[in-house]
Amino acid sequence: MNNYSTCSVGVVGFRGYSGAELVRILSRHPYVETVLLEHRADSEPRTGPLGRKIPKEVPATAEAIQAEKLDLVFLATPAEVSIDLAPPILAAGAKVVDLSGAFRLGDAETYSRWYRERHTAPALFDEAVYGLPEFYRDRIRSARLVANPGCYPTAANLALRPLVSAQVVDRTRGIICDAKSGVSGAGRKPSLKTSFCEVTENFSAYGFNDHRHVPEVLQNSGLGEREFTFTAHLLPLHRGILESIYLRTQGVKSAVDLLSVYEDHYADEPFIRLYAPGKVPDLRAVQGTNFCDIGFQFDSESQRATVVVAEDNLVKGAAGQAVQNMNLMLGFPETEALL
Amino acid sequence: MNNYSTCSVGVVGFRGYSGAELVRILSRHPYVETVLLEHRADSEPRTGPLGRKIPKEVPATAEAIQAEKLDLVFLATPAEVSIDLAPPILAAGAKVVDLSGAFRLGDAETYSRWYRERHTAPALFDEAVYGLPEFYRDRIRSARLVANPGCYPTAANLALRPLVSAQVVDRTRGIICDAKSGVSGAGRKPSLKTSFCEVTENFSAYGFNDHRHVPEVLQNSGLGEREFTFTAHLLPLHRGILESIYLRTQGVKSAVDLLSVYEDHYADEPFIRLYAPGKVPDLRAVQGTNFCDIGFQFDSESQRATVVVAEDNLVKGAAGQAVQNMNLMLGFPETEALL
Amino acid sequence: MNNYSTCSVGVVGFRGYSGAELVRILSRHPYVETVLLEHRADSEPRTGPLGRKIPKEVPATAEAIQAEKLDLVFLATPAEVSIDLAPPILAAGAKVVDLSGAFRLGDAETYSRWYRERHTAPALFDEAVYGLPEFYRDRIRSARLVANPGCYPTAANLALRPLVSAQVVDRTRGIICDAKSGVSGAGRKPSLKTSFCEVTENFSAYGFNDHRHVPEVLQNSGLGEREFTFTAHLLPLHRGILESIYLRTQGVKSAVDLLSVYEDHYADEPFIRLYAPGKVPDLRAVQGTNFCDIGFQFDSESQRATVVVAEDNLVKGAAGQAVQNMNLMLGFPETEALL
Amino acid sequence: MNNYSTCSVGVVGFRGYSGAELVRILSRHPYVETVLLEHRADSEPRTGPLGRKIPKEVPATAEAIQAEKLDLVFLATPAEVSIDLAPPILAAGAKVVDLSGAFRLGDAETYSRWYRERHTAPALFDEAVYGLPEFYRDRIRSARLVANPGCYPTAANLALRPLVSAQVVDRTRGIICDAKSGVSGAGRKPSLKTSFCEVTENFSAYGFNDHRHVPEVLQNSGLGEREFTFTAHLLPLHRGILESIYLRTQGVKSAVDLLSVYEDHYADEPFIRLYAPGKVPDLRAVQGTNFCDIGFQFDSESQRATVVVAEDNLVKGAAGQAVQNMNLMLGFPETEALL
Repeated sequence: MNNYSTCSVGVVGFRGYSGAELVRILSRHPYVETVLLEHRADSEPRTGPLGRKIPKEVPATAEAIQAEKLDLVFLATPAEVSIDLAPPILAAGAKVVDLSGAFRLGDAETYSRWYRERHTAPALFDEAVYGLPEFYRDRIRSARLVANPGCYPTAANLALRPLVSAQVVDRTRGIICDAKSGVSGAGRKPSLKTSFCEVTENFSAYGFNDHRHVPEVLQNSGLGEREFTFTAHLLPLHRGILESIYLRTQGVKSAVDLLSVYEDHYADEPFIRLYAPGKVPDLRAVQGTNFCDIGFQFDSESQRATVVVAEDNLVKGAAGQAVQNMNLMLGFPETEALL
Repeated sequence: MNNYSTCSVGVVGFRGYSGAELVRILSRHPYVETVLLEHRADSEPRTGPLGRKIPKEVPATAEAIQAEKLDLVFLATPAEVSIDLAPPILAAGAKVVDLSGAFRLGDAETYSRWYRERHTAPALFDEAVYGLPEFYRDRIRSARLVANPGCYPTAANLALRPLVSAQVVDRTRGIICDAKSGVSGAGRKPSLKTSFCEVTENFSAYGFNDHRHVPEVLQNSGLGEREFTFTAHLLPLHRGILESIYLRTQGVKSAVDLLSVYEDHYADEPFIRLYAPGKVPDLRAVQGTNFCDIGFQFDSESQRATVVVAEDNLVKGAAGQAVQNMNLMLGFPETEALL
Repeated sequence: MNNYSTCSVGVVGFRGYSGAELVRILSRHPYVETVLLEHRADSEPRTGPLGRKIPKEVPATAEAIQAEKLDLVFLATPAEVSIDLAPPILAAGAKVVDLSGAFRLGDAETYSRWYRERHTAPALFDEAVYGLPEFYRDRIRSARLVANPGCYPTAANLALRPLVSAQVVDRTRGIICDAKSGVSGAGRKPSLKTSFCEVTENFSAYGFNDHRHVPEVLQNSGLGEREFTFTAHLLPLHRGILESIYLRTQGVKSAVDLLSVYEDHYADEPFIRLYAPGKVPDLRAVQGTNFCDIGFQFDSESQRATVVVAEDNLVKGAAGQAVQNMNLMLGFPETEALL
Repeated sequence: MNNYSTCSVGVVGFRGYSGAELVRILSRHPYVETVLLEHRADSEPRTGPLGRKIPKEVPATAEAIQAEKLDLVFLATPAEVSIDLAPPILAAGAKVVDLSGAFRLGDAETYSRWYRERHTAPALFDEAVYGLPEFYRDRIRSARLVANPGCYPTAANLALRPLVSAQVVDRTRGIICDAKSGVSGAGRKPSLKTSFCEVTENFSAYGFNDHRHVPEVLQNSGLGEREFTFTAHLLPLHRGILESIYLRTQGVKSAVDLLSVYEDHYADEPFIRLYAPGKVPDLRAVQGTNFCDIGFQFDSESQRATVVVAEDNLVKGAAGQAVQNMNLMLGFPETEALL
């Protein structure tokens, strides 16, 4: 038997889709006790079968966090709420994994440009670590505040960064990311755009180069704003993101060579799965898992590569990656509760 | 060529699913000009391709109705709004087809019991006609105010009434109506219950014998409250209602005899389609049409009959039947714009 | 730590939906090694990410079963294949859990009537045990051959049998079971009826009192053929069964009394969940789980009860229950790999 | 009243999705009598309500075509069947609109390369006209044999050709077409890939630059093979194609200027609808219609344009366009039965 001591963690925003997925994953974690932190007044009645076990629920206050001796708090809340909650929670002694965009963009100016509001806790940018373990594992281990990546950028960065850093991308030709997401990415708050009758049997493009997730890709892949073109589309399904990424390589002799660039980067990564050249993942391969699957189609003559990357937006794109970060921050095995 | 003179009709609630379907059907009607009547302040911006033709839009006031010389107004509004709007519209000289439950239940007491609020225009019950043309065609022709039937009762009454009135139902054994509806039946207003992620890949029972549509079945089929058991279920699809109705017959010698009861009633009905014994409709057969399809499975030994009835809840269950009623009220061919 | 010795089990039909679900569940089972048993020649190419672990694959022969020292074999095969395979596998010393209808109906005559073909291994009926652990747990523990119940009967029997055996059902009034299933219940073999374009946005009734699952309900609930009326419907979704069951009770004073009948039967059952009176489960509550959830609506005046029962047809309705049976047959904790 | 004389037309392949849509559209056409031409032996039993009107059915032979005095025959058949049937039908005196790829690619060599089989009626390429009315209207009017365009190329050519021919595309940067289609595009023949359980809640890329539709885009847009990159994806919905097309313009000063390029080409086109800059169509806008909707997002600084084009694959992408071609070939108003 392993002998990890049990930690207590809290979840704010546990009714949202990411928050509920967090609670579900944490319920399988052998070294963690979960507490639900109630942030808003409008509590919903609990439903479901008689006699089922549900986590303890307390208010999301510094006092409660100290009383419960929480080691870490997940914020599955909108950015403006996370900005309000993170400082007192950190001050109360708990680490924070924030699933919003509040602390992802490096500084308050960039945040203001893309989120169109002033950032009221800019000092925290100094210590916030971008929570993409495949690239920032060591910094995450020692972080107090981790900014869990957005769902689209997680896939895009995992697909692009190895190629960019190996300098096999002809950046003068531009990189296109045609991204498609299931509806849970839009959150649980009812809206006409996510109503069943508007979405079923429909498909639409809803965000272009001005999408808030674009700067996360630029900052972490090293690409410039004019080099990266992005479109977000809404799929008539619950969960999953698939991105088809188009780029021209330079100096790549064969599909096997291109595959080896990925293999070099991801040899020991537990959550990255690669496909044989010409094979690509579909959403079914990753739904309900913390895997990010990468495949591609490559033509060495024209140096055209089409990379297809898939993940579950609620798992590797949100709650699963958050638990992966928590495992690193609290010293647990990185894959605990995630395989 | 026919020589009907053109009429002007208005639609209040044209943004809702029933209202939009009304506008769509009316746009194909050769003898009708449609005017959109704006009831609420919160007008949505129009979207769509450049240069498309859209109906004229005016406020839903008595003045505007007179200025536009409207012959008839459709109310695709909640019951409480219909109760407010119907009196001034009638006073302004227009006929009314109301798609809500405001005037369906015969008197204010019954309304109050099932809708749980007081009825503020009880005098109108005297002249309101229940708009099921297959049974009340003549009264509809001369009505000023027609209460367009609910979606579930339309199907249930069309399936049950011929059998009950032919006295082939053993009412002591009870009649069960297991009803399933697509999501558009819940209207366009966003809610968690009709959010895509809550509905897709899900199925649920949401209403029992206390459903507001139950008294419409009782009043028009002649069944007593304890004789009729009802459950409403939510299907993960856009449009369509299918009801499986279970009953015991009495004195029916064969499936052909049971079919002949329906054939006797519906011989000349343009919108009722019958199936050979043992064959039943599915939703695909009726979606986008004003048809109500009826089939059944029958075992003469046990006298058990399972009747399956299907309709499009937005057409025969709402907007299509409303236009069918309008055609009768304004003297047009009953099937105009509906076949 | 527990000290169960590891067993080897085989799966025939591992490409079908039930078989694949079996392999998935068994992959989480700590005391079981799974071997895939290839029955047909037409093997499909394996796809998926590079380097993933997949179970060993051997031919489904008596020799291979002995060579692999299999303790138990799951047959996720059509009834006629199971009838062929069960005798040699039992002779080779392995226990059998058969997921088909081959051995569920007690004798060869009943099988022939409902499956319309002769049974070529009738001797096995003597030892076959119907694998519904909530009712036959002890017999399953010592069985060599378990007939895993059908998906519809599992739900129907779990909902009905407590009420019938407590004699609170007025059987003279008849019991109606209006059943709805997701498409995976029809298996993985391509057919027009289960093609996407035929199913999406559609809903249909496809089986009546002559459905093969009906005799399973009769035999295990104690109801007579004329007392039980059944209709099967196809839902446009992947997995899940929900049945609305209509019956009249006798001598039940209140909803709480009706609930207590269920509580008495299911007090210690790990996979049965009950709901407060008036609350009922939806499919979401049970998808991906081995739970069978039961709720009801009850009116004591009329003694009308509408019982709503839900399960995942691939788990409690097939593979999950098969593993539950295996756990009993091999002496493992009954809930292993299932919670 | 108009005074067109009625024509008789036949449909081979009327059971497929495109063929059934043809029959549906033709049933609304005032100047056309439709005959179903039975090609295969395996006729399916007709189902549906009693007494419905269905078109006459005769064998798909030259004799029958002459006996029925058919003016035009639609071939909604696989390419190899169309190659067999077109010569005798033309010899029998009927015009042909072929919905397959048999006669789209200009010559037998190109056909053989992309369809991987020899073309056995190469002489017909001389007279076959590519049936995209917006570009070849006059030639279609006088054609005996029209090759109805593929679903993907219809949208891609309508979106691209105006820009390419106005020389506002920087072809050295490459054009990317990320295309998504509903499942009906794959036809009605059952297959695992189009089974409900494989498609629902899933999304996948299934064709790249080697897709058979690519040469249709190259030949009609004027782009070279290395200039055009294509990926086909499968959407979990019944009908509709949406393509996001990425390109760099040259010399375009503003979004309004880019829009004017489209307006110049499509000013009088009844089935092309344009959107204001920054607005794009979704599938709902075009489902069930013969419209092709085009919108775009444009950044004049970087000259990046993202064009979003949508159509119903069974209407403008197949049966609707086929009727549009028929209207031209038989001298009817081009929009008859299509608005």
